[in-house]
Amino acid sequence: MYGTIMHAPGDVRYEELAMPTIQQPTDAIIKLSATCICGSDLWPYRGANAITAPMAMGHEYCGIVVEVGSDVKTVKPGQFVVGSFVLSDNTCPHCAHGFQSSCEQREFMTGAQAEYARIPLADGTLVSTDSQPDEDLIPSLLAVSDVLGTGWYAADAARVQAGMSVVVVGDGAVGLMGVLAAKQMGAERIIAMSRHKSRQDLALEYGATDIVAERGEEGIAKIKAMTNRIGADAVLECVGTQESMTQALQVARPGSMVGFVGVPHGVQFDGQKLFFTQVGMLGGPAPVRRFLPHLMDLVLSRKINPGKVFDQQIPLADVAEGYRAMDERRAIKTLLRV
Amino acid sequence: MYGTIMHAPGDVRYEELAMPTIQQPTDAIIKLSATCICGSDLWPYRGANAITAPMAMGHEYCGIVVEVGSDVKTVKPGQFVVGSFVLSDNTCPHCAHGFQSSCEQREFMTGAQAEYARIPLADGTLVSTDSQPDEDLIPSLLAVSDVLGTGWYAADAARVQAGMSVVVVGDGAVGLMGVLAAKQMGAERIIAMSRHKSRQDLALEYGATDIVAERGEEGIAKIKAMTNRIGADAVLECVGTQESMTQALQVARPGSMVGFVGVPHGVQFDGQKLFFTQVGMLGGPAPVRRFLPHLMDLVLSRKINPGKVFDQQIPLADVAEGYRAMDERRAIKTLLRV
Repeated sequence: MYGTIMHAPGDVRYEELAMPTIQQPTDAIIKLSATCICGSDLWPYRGANAITAPMAMGHEYCGIVVEVGSDVKTVKPGQFVVGSFVLSDNTCPHCAHGFQSSCEQREFMTGAQAEYARIPLADGTLVSTDSQPDEDLIPSLLAVSDVLGTGWYAADAARVQAGMSVVVVGDGAVGLMGVLAAKQMGAERIIAMSRHKSRQDLALEYGATDIVAERGEEGIAKIKAMTNRIGADAVLECVGTQESMTQALQVARPGSMVGFVGVPHGVQFDGQKLFFTQVGMLGGPAPVRRFLPHLMDLVLSRKINPGKVFDQQIPLADVAEGYRAMDERRAIKTLLRV
Repeated sequence: MYGTIMHAPGDVRYEELAMPTIQQPTDAIIKLSATCICGSDLWPYRGANAITAPMAMGHEYCGIVVEVGSDVKTVKPGQFVVGSFVLSDNTCPHCAHGFQSSCEQREFMTGAQAEYARIPLADGTLVSTDSQPDEDLIPSLLAVSDVLGTGWYAADAARVQAGMSVVVVGDGAVGLMGVLAAKQMGAERIIAMSRHKSRQDLALEYGATDIVAERGEEGIAKIKAMTNRIGADAVLECVGTQESMTQALQVARPGSMVGFVGVPHGVQFDGQKLFFTQVGMLGGPAPVRRFLPHLMDLVLSRKINPGKVFDQQIPLADVAEGYRAMDERRAIKTLLRV
């Protein structure tokens, strides 16, 4: 079978690989229906994370189960499944609290940009549909695996509730999913910070009520003017830089929460400043497994269309072009057809 | 009248001062029934905060209204009142959200270690009792003004709920009030980190179920063993040093909140570490005004006895001895009789 290996920054290859096999009795093997490239895949691609050995890329996935280990009970060959990018047993105390992304057996998925993939901890990680989903729903079901689940967690961590004002910092795929999530949770005002026309349009389509293109002091002033002078009731930070984190904290009102899901790179906080700002924070890798059943239902009943975030869809064999397109920001997010 | 002035580190004097007068139509003047010394008063006393001019000390207070400005509507001369250490209008958007400690007109109280004090923004700051409280309740009513209100906010910010496991870091007066608050909120297990016998005893009396005297790795291991291996459901940080904050974050389970109320001194957070720890944080000066009516009710109906935290009660004239006793940790908290 074929899959994607990153050999060095900028060097992504589609190549022949060994067919994955059951290694633990809790494993499943799936045939991918579709997979995609994540913003976080660009960190090593751009040389920001070290590559010490060839890396099997890809952690977002959905597809058909082809084989299961002897201990797997909840999914079986022939079923369509979606799983989280974080593998979890879904039974440990962390999982019981809904933080499967801190599972005691946690592993991070790899090797999903391929025709077949091994899914460890299948029972705790995968959720199956009752029947084969319509073909046009595949992109949206794929989105649940990480990008939608992560945007949803940002809104959940920021404790978005009906009637609230919400600011989304970051107009990448996760930020756009954050807009969708805030809308679903009943936010009254959703302010998307974005400077790119195509992303602004998608944000509006997903439920943003306002676009703020300005950053820094100007952006803060504009948002305060929209939020009773005090800042938003909830803020979603979907980038992970010092600049975006500072922006997020400055547009949040005292007593509100910033849900931060962009992996922080070089971000520092001063304790006393945070104290007097009186803004709360909760972040981390999204516990997508907690949200999977609900989000899959929303997709299958056609209440949401997160798949629209894939503005480039190409064959898996062209994966290298997908990385280039996302690196050059020609694509928001690239779906790879298998 | 007489009051307390700090002239330099270690130099606190009880001296004759001008009688406070109404300066704004929203002011009230109160005759103090009792006042006290705060842990935060020790920062300048120990030279950690600069003293550029003689400082009128004291921000915790209760007493009888003797005069009100022409705009004051909710309190009147003769009434017994308790107020927050943060002065607020209680009408601005921040106040409406229950974060009076970020009020648009916010001022911090000063000059309460005195016979009389001016209370700006009286309508938004003071809460009166229906009648004169019994004398023995004065210490507990005084505690509501800051130390109990702050411990209560730590538990509120940490989102303590019935059935939870809670760790309180810090066995000062605020930490002990945090124990009391967690108990009132229905926490099932309350672990107080304390190395001092007298404070351990008071923690147990206020509802702690366990005492952990160990710190660092040893303390963490002990708490994990008590909390299903994963850490507590909520953590109250009541000190404000890097060591205590690190301790707090390490005993909190992923998905939980640390409510931090010790003013951070030299505390820094690394964004990526916080991300992968997946612990939430909310701190700041306590919005005591939000809790005043409820906490005063609990005291007046004798359901709680926070006044026991004052293990030294001396005449106001002996204020300098009170500072010495708290500085030398001979007293947890010193009440000054007026």
